[in-house]
Amino acid sequence: MSFETIHEGNIRAYLMTVPGLFPANARLQVTEIGDGNINFVYKVWDDKSGQSVIVKQAKPYLRSSGKDRSLTTDRIRIESEVMAIEGSFCPDLVPKIYHQDMGQSLFVMEDLSDHEIMRKGLIKRKRYPLFPEHIGTFMAHTLYKTSDFTLEAKAKKAMQARFINPEMCEITEKLVFTVPYYDDQTTRYMPGSAQAGAALRSNEPLKKEVAKLKEAFLTSAQALIHGDLHTGSLFVTENSTKAIDQEFAYYGPMGFDVGAVIGNLVLNYAAHEYHSPDPAQREDFRTYLLETIEAVWQVFEREFTRLWKEHNQEVTAQAEGYREDYLARLFADSMGFGGCKVIRRIGRAPVEDFTSIADPKIRAKAERLALKLGEAMVRERHDFGTIEAVTHRIREIQAEAE
Amino acid sequence: MSFETIHEGNIRAYLMTVPGLFPANARLQVTEIGDGNINFVYKVWDDKSGQSVIVKQAKPYLRSSGKDRSLTTDRIRIESEVMAIEGSFCPDLVPKIYHQDMGQSLFVMEDLSDHEIMRKGLIKRKRYPLFPEHIGTFMAHTLYKTSDFTLEAKAKKAMQARFINPEMCEITEKLVFTVPYYDDQTTRYMPGSAQAGAALRSNEPLKKEVAKLKEAFLTSAQALIHGDLHTGSLFVTENSTKAIDQEFAYYGPMGFDVGAVIGNLVLNYAAHEYHSPDPAQREDFRTYLLETIEAVWQVFEREFTRLWKEHNQEVTAQAEGYREDYLARLFADSMGFGGCKVIRRIGRAPVEDFTSIADPKIRAKAERLALKLGEAMVRERHDFGTIEAVTHRIREIQAEAE
Repeated sequence: MSFETIHEGNIRAYLMTVPGLFPANARLQVTEIGDGNINFVYKVWDDKSGQSVIVKQAKPYLRSSGKDRSLTTDRIRIESEVMAIEGSFCPDLVPKIYHQDMGQSLFVMEDLSDHEIMRKGLIKRKRYPLFPEHIGTFMAHTLYKTSDFTLEAKAKKAMQARFINPEMCEITEKLVFTVPYYDDQTTRYMPGSAQAGAALRSNEPLKKEVAKLKEAFLTSAQALIHGDLHTGSLFVTENSTKAIDQEFAYYGPMGFDVGAVIGNLVLNYAAHEYHSPDPAQREDFRTYLLETIEAVWQVFEREFTRLWKEHNQEVTAQAEGYREDYLARLFADSMGFGGCKVIRRIGRAPVEDFTSIADPKIRAKAERLALKLGEAMVRERHDFGTIEAVTHRIREIQAEAE
Repeated sequence: MSFETIHEGNIRAYLMTVPGLFPANARLQVTEIGDGNINFVYKVWDDKSGQSVIVKQAKPYLRSSGKDRSLTTDRIRIESEVMAIEGSFCPDLVPKIYHQDMGQSLFVMEDLSDHEIMRKGLIKRKRYPLFPEHIGTFMAHTLYKTSDFTLEAKAKKAMQARFINPEMCEITEKLVFTVPYYDDQTTRYMPGSAQAGAALRSNEPLKKEVAKLKEAFLTSAQALIHGDLHTGSLFVTENSTKAIDQEFAYYGPMGFDVGAVIGNLVLNYAAHEYHSPDPAQREDFRTYLLETIEAVWQVFEREFTRLWKEHNQEVTAQAEGYREDYLARLFADSMGFGGCKVIRRIGRAPVEDFTSIADPKIRAKAERLALKLGEAMVRERHDFGTIEAVTHRIREIQAEAE
């Protein structure tokens, strides 16, 4: 049986041709569950056995913009290959892949319907006690093991060439590093945060630091980074964490991933102005978020250091003090990228943490706080020195904003 | 007429099949003139018309090591393509290319027999008054115009993928950044410089800085760099400069090229302990060399700044103070890479500046001076701030060494 193109209408027949996926007598059901703006995502399950899978398919255009905005389907190759690579390091921290078909621009993976998007959970004040251990380990392993510290230079360069990802990088380059500082976004802000948002465009000290961070995003090929590791790309339960949506992966600066996680926790921190209206409850959840931020860095640093000590094929990395120097720079990068991720979510492409705030005045207050936190993370990144100094500063800025 | 493989015996017949290269009645002569350790280089000329060309051919192994050391011939594609790209920016500063044949791993270029390898000229105290203008312009244009400041990110990434150059980079990674600090090279030093050379291996502060520079060489994809821009890759006359030997080119840190030029002038400076035995004459030529070092940076900085102001497609580069910050970092990188280039030429792979010194005591003295200069360039690179501070420090170290 051959298929011209796979779509909702014929996907069940297609999956029955994949050996070992479903029993021969399966009675498949399908529903489209994609909520992103890029791809199509189908959940397919067998009524009889209860087995289910997720199918992710790329079309040669940006879903949210229709066929006017073309986008290479190579992103689905990158996503499935990177998920498989990450899975080889951290099998429990990404979905299992069952089938890849690049001719159809799709792959089939584990159904994680028992998991929830972390962003949605945090908005509801859910806590994930194992999350720092999971995500710190995930980042340490995926970044360290694709870097020059693990791979021979030739093997690393081959990987780098395989994951040159110009189209997806361009989206990040524009939305994270350019739009907030150079485009007129007046109509996209809340009335109460528009002034603070517009002020970014004349904040030259901030723009200079953002330019340096964008430069690193464009030129620094440290590791195969996830490239979009925000809380919307994390599927969680209380006991499990799975990183998904690897289509932005490329060889870039490690701090971009660490910063994405921390920056999105900071966004949630700012948004709890609304989601925890009771001051004591708000204080309590914000303390949890800051402790989580600290623990994410601590676990990452611990695991990264352990991997470095256990195996480092880069002989020059033995130099006294080099590892400490590297981690200090990686820490500063992470805070800087984290700050950029915070700022870029105010105005264009806001996240649910903010869009779900019903009261425009409270939302604007939360957004103003987020902008201040983001700016401090970018501009003071070389001064913090420790993650505790960062969380202390977050508290301080929040107190000043009251 | 078809050719299995081109070699000295059939190269004349082969060139007669290339349209427009020689007149139909040409009487070709050939001689192999390659003095490198990697490729074969033929000069072919027509006795009748006086026309001549150079043919450069790669074999699938390292020439100096025989067939035991395999090396991809892709380097000849990279060399000829990069030479052509550089020629599109600076037509007067690279040889003209007449013919490329990647099936035969060769290309045919302008014969520059009236030029001399700059290293040999400097050893003879020849001066090149236009050299700073030429090389500063060459580096500013080739680096700026292949960077994210000129190219759209997608076009730049396509270029980056096209010039991933793992095998040639590996040679640099080892010889420039690793061997001097980690390999036992005792038998390769002069008796009088062996102690200073061996001391590199326990010089932890230096090794830490070299590790950071190696990291940049491995990860920083700023521009399509020449990758081996020492004075042996520069063909010069009093009025002309031509950059050759582009086989090490890849997307790397700009400072590696600037540092190669400056580092090799520093090597010559140290070697003039011997080549100018008369103190006044030595002083005079060393002053010329330091003035040249200053002028090289000044022209480079002036041209780079001019290009930045005239055309910069990277909108974030408009941020106040970013250009100055970028140039300050590029300056520090250049001095650091320059220092590495100096150090790596003492011991293994010494250059003619030193190997031509007949008196082993004088050679050892010159080598000890070079090691001190190289170390200062690496370790103090963030402190200099200006090129004049560098040349001042070179004077100071040389005076202390007397």
